[in-house]
Amino acid sequence: MVRGRISRLSVRDVRFPTSLGGHGADAMHTDPDYSAAYVVIETDAEDGIKGCGITFTLGKGTEVVVCAVNALAHHVLNKDLKDIVGDFRGFYRQLTSDGQLRWIGPEKGVVHLATAAVLNAVWDLWAKQEGKPVWKLLVDMDPRMLVSCIDFRYITDVLTEEDALEILQKGQIGKKEREKQMLAQGYPAYTTSCAWLGYSDDTLKQLCAQALKDGWTRFKVKVGADLQDDMRRCQIIRDMIGPEKTLSLFLQMMDANQRWDVPEAVEWMSKLAKFKPLWIEEPTSPDDILGHATISKCHNRVIFKQLLQAKALQFLQIDSCRLGSVNENLSVLLMAKKFEIPVCPHAGGVGLCELVQHLIIFDYISVSASLENRVCEYVDHLHEHFKYPVMIQRASYMPPKDPGYSTEMKEESVKKHQYPDGEVWKKLLPAQEN
Amino acid sequence: MVRGRISRLSVRDVRFPTSLGGHGADAMHTDPDYSAAYVVIETDAEDGIKGCGITFTLGKGTEVVVCAVNALAHHVLNKDLKDIVGDFRGFYRQLTSDGQLRWIGPEKGVVHLATAAVLNAVWDLWAKQEGKPVWKLLVDMDPRMLVSCIDFRYITDVLTEEDALEILQKGQIGKKEREKQMLAQGYPAYTTSCAWLGYSDDTLKQLCAQALKDGWTRFKVKVGADLQDDMRRCQIIRDMIGPEKTLSLFLQMMDANQRWDVPEAVEWMSKLAKFKPLWIEEPTSPDDILGHATISKCHNRVIFKQLLQAKALQFLQIDSCRLGSVNENLSVLLMAKKFEIPVCPHAGGVGLCELVQHLIIFDYISVSASLENRVCEYVDHLHEHFKYPVMIQRASYMPPKDPGYSTEMKEESVKKHQYPDGEVWKKLLPAQEN
Repeated sequence: MVRGRISRLSVRDVRFPTSLGGHGADAMHTDPDYSAAYVVIETDAEDGIKGCGITFTLGKGTEVVVCAVNALAHHVLNKDLKDIVGDFRGFYRQLTSDGQLRWIGPEKGVVHLATAAVLNAVWDLWAKQEGKPVWKLLVDMDPRMLVSCIDFRYITDVLTEEDALEILQKGQIGKKEREKQMLAQGYPAYTTSCAWLGYSDDTLKQLCAQALKDGWTRFKVKVGADLQDDMRRCQIIRDMIGPEKTLSLFLQMMDANQRWDVPEAVEWMSKLAKFKPLWIEEPTSPDDILGHATISKCHNRVIFKQLLQAKALQFLQIDSCRLGSVNENLSVLLMAKKFEIPVCPHAGGVGLCELVQHLIIFDYISVSASLENRVCEYVDHLHEHFKYPVMIQRASYMPPKDPGYSTEMKEESVKKHQYPDGEVWKKLLPAQEN
Repeated sequence: MVRGRISRLSVRDVRFPTSLGGHGADAMHTDPDYSAAYVVIETDAEDGIKGCGITFTLGKGTEVVVCAVNALAHHVLNKDLKDIVGDFRGFYRQLTSDGQLRWIGPEKGVVHLATAAVLNAVWDLWAKQEGKPVWKLLVDMDPRMLVSCIDFRYITDVLTEEDALEILQKGQIGKKEREKQMLAQGYPAYTTSCAWLGYSDDTLKQLCAQALKDGWTRFKVKVGADLQDDMRRCQIIRDMIGPEKTLSLFLQMMDANQRWDVPEAVEWMSKLAKFKPLWIEEPTSPDDILGHATISKCHNRVIFKQLLQAKALQFLQIDSCRLGSVNENLSVLLMAKKFEIPVCPHAGGVGLCELVQHLIIFDYISVSASLENRVCEYVDHLHEHFKYPVMIQRASYMPPKDPGYSTEMKEESVKKHQYPDGEVWKKLLPAQEN
């Protein structure tokens, strides 16, 4: 089935001027323009199938990630797709362990974001060729083949190849029923669309009321810029969703986006505790394992490994674009299973919902087999630019049915939003300079 | 004294084809071309003084760091130098916490290397305007002013501003004597020039014999690619320097450059233990705090903080180009002092020796006040390209006397080695393609 040699790789800097509406603003990122380095790979197979991959960024600096994708391109070009997926661990390591390039990482920041964009394109291509969405490709894949996609370097003290295989083999039991359940009911989500720091109280109330009407029961609020402000906003949400009860479906999460020092986080949260948050997310530096945290987005499997070892988190957030694509997320899902920590993916931005739904649906069907304390983030922005946008029903992600990784953007959207030459930016940039 | 507005910032991609001779090869970086993103800033003060800053890279990817420097440039341009150094903490935070750019870091990988290059240029400019080498600028600086250069975000659980001030005030006692001592005797060094993995046994023996003749007594050997090979090479060195004795000056260090998993590191080192290494450096992932390590190079103060908290290192290696310049290194030196862990700087590469000598000499005079178990790495490569190269006497770094941070390269060297258009690469690139 898998065919063709990679004959072309292109990468574009695509930016959406979200900062104009205060969308996406939090305590550390006050004016984000949601953006992506958008990679397209083509083969010589003459079947018209392209692999599309993205990584998510916040505007400035996207050009640096684009530059890093170009620096990685020679590892992909002229390779047979068959050889790549036939030794995906080897290919992953080639990308992440280039003797010269790894110095400017390794496996973190710009180069790792670029690696994710490239690998996401490879997974999209592979799944499209197989005629399956990525989650289904993974669910149907033999456990040995799944394990062969994972680089175990630096995690064998916690998860060996044998451990991984054992978990995946146990996950086969009841798989069919869980797949049916997913197709019928979808994967539960929570919304972050209502309570950005850039929104007024009126906007907050209005969005929250509409979301409740649409069936949402779990809301995340951004905190950390001003304590009085936070208390007022949390009270508004708590009033609207009703008092917290044990096992209530109506929940509130909080996210400080790395704003605090450790003592500051403890003090601030003691004030916000009365609003009964389910979790507090990223209270401090993402590098601070010992100072952490009930929930954390991390940059690679080595950081996640330690948070699990140190029992420093109660919920684990995977990310489809910060980690090294499906490959590295597989290793994190398996470690989370071993430590019995629920995975609640990070999403939003541009395309993060589209991608991560594949991973979490696979996780439920083949790894965790549980929905307890599990919920996937959802943000209602920018889906209209994707060819296969997420589908939400009754506040749940419905499993995508189109082949691929749902990464493909509409060519028209890409052209309009290319930075700095797209139509949108040609209009905006002179205006911003005045 | 401080004067002028930053009117120009240029950055160039400078690469030295070191891989041709096997220099710098280790278990993870088999063919490095030692390189630098080289930043020059100019002011409108019309005094002809330029600030030069570098960050060190291994060849490929330098263009990505150059791109990141350009993305940071708008934070520096048109600023008064007086305003920058007058609120250096604020300026540091502006560079590292840009609401859009921090997403592709934060404070790690490409953007942090770029930050280091830019800040190193600012420190060079400042010191040149004051007519002092950086170490002397720091030694003469009021403790309150020193503290105002440090961003304490994410480290206040271990080191507050008050702690830092107290340490620096205590460091004033005996400062004059220690400065005299440094000027007379220099700071003790060890050499990494003899035992790269790319060298044959004959080259190893010959270089080691010459180094002993030159007064070197401490040698570092690269390990981790092949165990039998490592044992043979370590035996050669141990034979040449004589048996290990308590408090002997003749020492051997080992460096695995992140090659191993945790169990692998334990097994491998149990075999190498008989050669009595003083330390084993970077046995595993630099992100693995819990799995560590007796000595480690890290990417920011948050990682160092935890290694100290977790008592996971017995020696601490600062780096003049991976951390955020003098500012962030100050915070790490102070934390090391608080935990009483000896600092043994990482050096080598291009210019790392030139820069880090300023930091370690300042550390001895004003912070640690001790030479016990302390030694600074030295590698004898590429110094000829610097306008103010390091001076080694009796295996010690002699304090530089020229104003600035010793970062300035010879314009002729830069031109010749610019990638890909310099003379050296114009010759090499077509040859490599054949």
